[in-house]
Amino acid sequence: MAERAGHRAAPAHTHPEEVPVQTALAALADPVRIQLVRELAASPVWTRSCGSFDVPVGKAALSHHFTVLRGAGLVEQRDEGPRRVNRLRREEFEACFPGLLDLVLRPDARTQDG
Amino acid sequence: MAERAGHRAAPAHTHPEEVPVQTALAALADPVRIQLVRELAASPVWTRSCGSFDVPVGKAALSHHFTVLRGAGLVEQRDEGPRRVNRLRREEFEACFPGLLDLVLRPDARTQDG
Repeated sequence: MAERAGHRAAPAHTHPEEVPVQTALAALADPVRIQLVRELAASPVWTRSCGSFDVPVGKAALSHHFTVLRGAGLVEQRDEGPRRVNRLRREEFEACFPGLLDLVLRPDARTQDG
Repeated sequence: MAERAGHRAAPAHTHPEEVPVQTALAALADPVRIQLVRELAASPVWTRSCGSFDVPVGKAALSHHFTVLRGAGLVEQRDEGPRRVNRLRREEFEACFPGLLDLVLRPDARTQDG
């Protein structure tokens, strides 16, 4: 049997069709995840590794944020050797939650209270 | 000077124009608040008192949920004698966050995980 090159288990994914609206909203109601989604939206698909984002959190917290994004049908990941690269599931998420990503991605969107 | 009939301070409100998208999303990412918003959307404005909703939470928790909804520009409240009555700020919230309320109000929206 062929063995995976990576030493991690392949990430589990959830299709946005399977995602309750509450889960989708909660996934996006976080400043770090909003930043991850914005950077992904501004990058070509499969070009961004998990360590390439400009967010002020440690490795474990970042891993948790990606788990939440996968579980909400927002992000797809795959391992390319040592890198885990990402794709924003823009079209399929938009089909399930019309307009929601646009609210988060619009340039004037304030993410901080006060 | 005329004195207010109620013995509570008038509730503080936030216009949806002042609300960051993250705050709007967080306000709606909760099963109790989704239920409150749905019941409000299905009722004529200013007809629902705070105690009239079918949600499984105590008075203090309910009060907190209404504070969150007011702070997100989703609900307006006023006191009518001993009753505090509610209005969903449907038009002004929709103007600021197009499509967001519709996602929560659509009949097929699943609110529970799993």
